[in-house]
Amino acid sequence: MSDVFWGIDIGGTNVKLGLVDSEGEILARGSIPTQIPDGPAALVDRIAATCKGQLEVAGIAPDQVRGMGIGSPGPLDYQNGKLIKTANLTGFDYFPLRAELSEKLTCPAILDNDANMVCWGEFWMGAGKAVSDMILFTLGTGIGGAIVCEGELIHGHYGNGGELGHLIVFPDGRECGCGQKGCLEAYASANHMVRRLTEALKMGRDSSLKKLHATGRKITSKDIFEADDKGDELAGEMIDGMCKALALASVSLRHATEPQMVVLAGGVSKAGSVLTDRIVAFYDQHMWNLNDDPIEFKLAVLGDDAGIVGTAGAALHAWEKNQLSPVGQ
Amino acid sequence: MSDVFWGIDIGGTNVKLGLVDSEGEILARGSIPTQIPDGPAALVDRIAATCKGQLEVAGIAPDQVRGMGIGSPGPLDYQNGKLIKTANLTGFDYFPLRAELSEKLTCPAILDNDANMVCWGEFWMGAGKAVSDMILFTLGTGIGGAIVCEGELIHGHYGNGGELGHLIVFPDGRECGCGQKGCLEAYASANHMVRRLTEALKMGRDSSLKKLHATGRKITSKDIFEADDKGDELAGEMIDGMCKALALASVSLRHATEPQMVVLAGGVSKAGSVLTDRIVAFYDQHMWNLNDDPIEFKLAVLGDDAGIVGTAGAALHAWEKNQLSPVGQ
Repeated sequence: MSDVFWGIDIGGTNVKLGLVDSEGEILARGSIPTQIPDGPAALVDRIAATCKGQLEVAGIAPDQVRGMGIGSPGPLDYQNGKLIKTANLTGFDYFPLRAELSEKLTCPAILDNDANMVCWGEFWMGAGKAVSDMILFTLGTGIGGAIVCEGELIHGHYGNGGELGHLIVFPDGRECGCGQKGCLEAYASANHMVRRLTEALKMGRDSSLKKLHATGRKITSKDIFEADDKGDELAGEMIDGMCKALALASVSLRHATEPQMVVLAGGVSKAGSVLTDRIVAFYDQHMWNLNDDPIEFKLAVLGDDAGIVGTAGAALHAWEKNQLSPVGQ
Repeated sequence: MSDVFWGIDIGGTNVKLGLVDSEGEILARGSIPTQIPDGPAALVDRIAATCKGQLEVAGIAPDQVRGMGIGSPGPLDYQNGKLIKTANLTGFDYFPLRAELSEKLTCPAILDNDANMVCWGEFWMGAGKAVSDMILFTLGTGIGGAIVCEGELIHGHYGNGGELGHLIVFPDGRECGCGQKGCLEAYASANHMVRRLTEALKMGRDSSLKKLHATGRKITSKDIFEADDKGDELAGEMIDGMCKALALASVSLRHATEPQMVVLAGGVSKAGSVLTDRIVAFYDQHMWNLNDDPIEFKLAVLGDDAGIVGTAGAALHAWEKNQLSPVGQ
C-alpha cells in the first residue's frame, strides 16, 4: 500500500486536482471551475467533494492519503496557510485556505504559491529531476519564479521569497505593475512584451503586425512569436528584450544561489527552443568566464500536470520532514 | 569544560587567528604576517605553531578543541577544502589548505571563503544576532557577499554562491575586473569609486579633490568620503552611485531570498551612517510597497574580530551538525 497525496492547484479560472503516489505517479486527475463569485467556502466544498470522488474512482482508501498540497496565486501568508490579497481571487482576501481544506478532508496540509509548486514539480519529477539546485521562471501574463537550493525551496523570511519577476534588471526602466521600475516582469512577461511592441508601432516602427494592430484586435505574445518566426524584425527585437532580461536575471541569480539549472515554465515557454537558445546566447555574453561550472537552460516538461505533481510532491516532502500542518490548522 | 574552536582567517597580508568558545567568547587572539613568498607549507607550519602557543597561553587542553574554521579569499573548492586560484595568494593555487592544517593540528576542520565567514560571525555574534535571514556585503577594494537563509549560509551548487559583488545592477555598464559589465562591484567598490571620480575629473568636472589629484597622489575612498562630508558635489555623486548600486542589489536579493537584514562590513563600511542612510533612501525609492515587511540596514559590529569569530563559529556550527571534515581530509 503506497503513500498517496492530494495535489490541489488553484488558479483564477480552474482548479486542477489529483492524487499522486510517492513515486510521482498520477492516480487520478481532474479539473473544476474556480467560480470565484461563489466565494471561498463554496470552493472548499466543491474541491473536497471532487477529491473524495477521486478517492473512490481510484480505489484508494482514505487512510492511504498522507497529506495534501495546495498551490495558490500569491502573495500568501505561508507560515499560517492563508491567502493575503490576490488580484486573481477577488473575495478570497485573508481566507485560511489551508485550515479549511485540511479540516474538510481530515488531512494534514501545506499551502504554497503556485510558482513554487510548479518548481517543486519540475524539481521532483520533471526537467530538474537530476539536479539539487535550480531556479524556475513561470512565463505568462506576469512572471513568477522560485528557487531550489540544496534540495529545498527558498521561502525567505516572510514566506514570499523567489519572487523573481521583480528582480530589477534595468534600473529606472519600464514601470512594472508592482510599482517598481525596471523589473524582469516589465520586460519578459507576455503582457509587457505586447505593450512594448504596440508602443513601438505607435512610434512608427514598421512590422508585419501593423495590419493586425490596425484592426483593433489585441496583439498576443503568440502573434509576436509567429511574426518573429517569419522574420519580422520588430517582433524579433521584442523577444530579444525578453530573453536578455531573463539572461541578466539568471546571471545575477547564478552568483547569488548558484543553480545548476534554469527551467522555463508557463504558457509563454511553449514557444520552445527559440527562447532557450536566445537566453543562452545572452547569458554567455553577460556571464563572467572565471569558471566554467556548467549551467543548463531547460523547458519545463510536466505541462498541465505540473501543478498537481508539484503540490502533491510538496506534501510528500513536508510529510517526510514531519512539517505538514495538522488538520484544521 | 566548554567546547573551544580555532578560528583562522587568512588574508593577503595577515592571518588572524584565535580561540573562541561556544558562547562566542574570544579566549585568545593573534595575528601573524602571511608572508606569501614563503609558500603555503611554511604558512601552515607557522599557523600551527601559533595556534599551539595560544592553547598554552589560554590554558586550554588540546582535547577541548572540537574543530577548526578556516577562512580564505575565494574562489574555493568548498567541498574539497582546497584553494583554486586566488589573486591575493600567489603560489597557493590548488593548495589543500583544509587537509594540511587539520592534519598539522590533529583537528577536524571546515574551509570557507572570507566573506561567508565574516557573514557567519555577524550572524552568530554580531549585527545579525537576532535574525534568521540576512545578507552581507563586504565593502573594500572589491565587493564580497554572503547570504544566510533560514539560519544557513548559501553555498550554491559549486560552492561559490553569495558572490554578490557580481550581481549585474547596470546592464552593459562599467567593465568589472571579472569580465562582466555593470556588476555591483564596478560601482560600489572602493577601487571603482575612485576610478569613477578620477574619470570625472579628467572629463573636466570640478571638485575639491582636483588639487589632490593634480599632485599625483592616488585618491582614496577615504578622501572621497571626507570631501563629501565637506559638501563636495562630485564626491557626493560618487557615494550616491555606490549606495544606489547597493540598494538595487538589495531590492533584487530581497525578492530572491527575502532577508530581514542587510549588513555592511569591510573597510569602506567604516564610513558609517552616511552609507546606511543613503542606501535606505535609494532602497525605499526602488523597492515596491506591496507589503511592508520590515528590512534593516546595519553596519557590521565585530570589526577586526569578525574573521576569527566567524571562522570559529562556522566550525562550531559544522561540529553541531556533524559536518566537519575529518583530520587530514
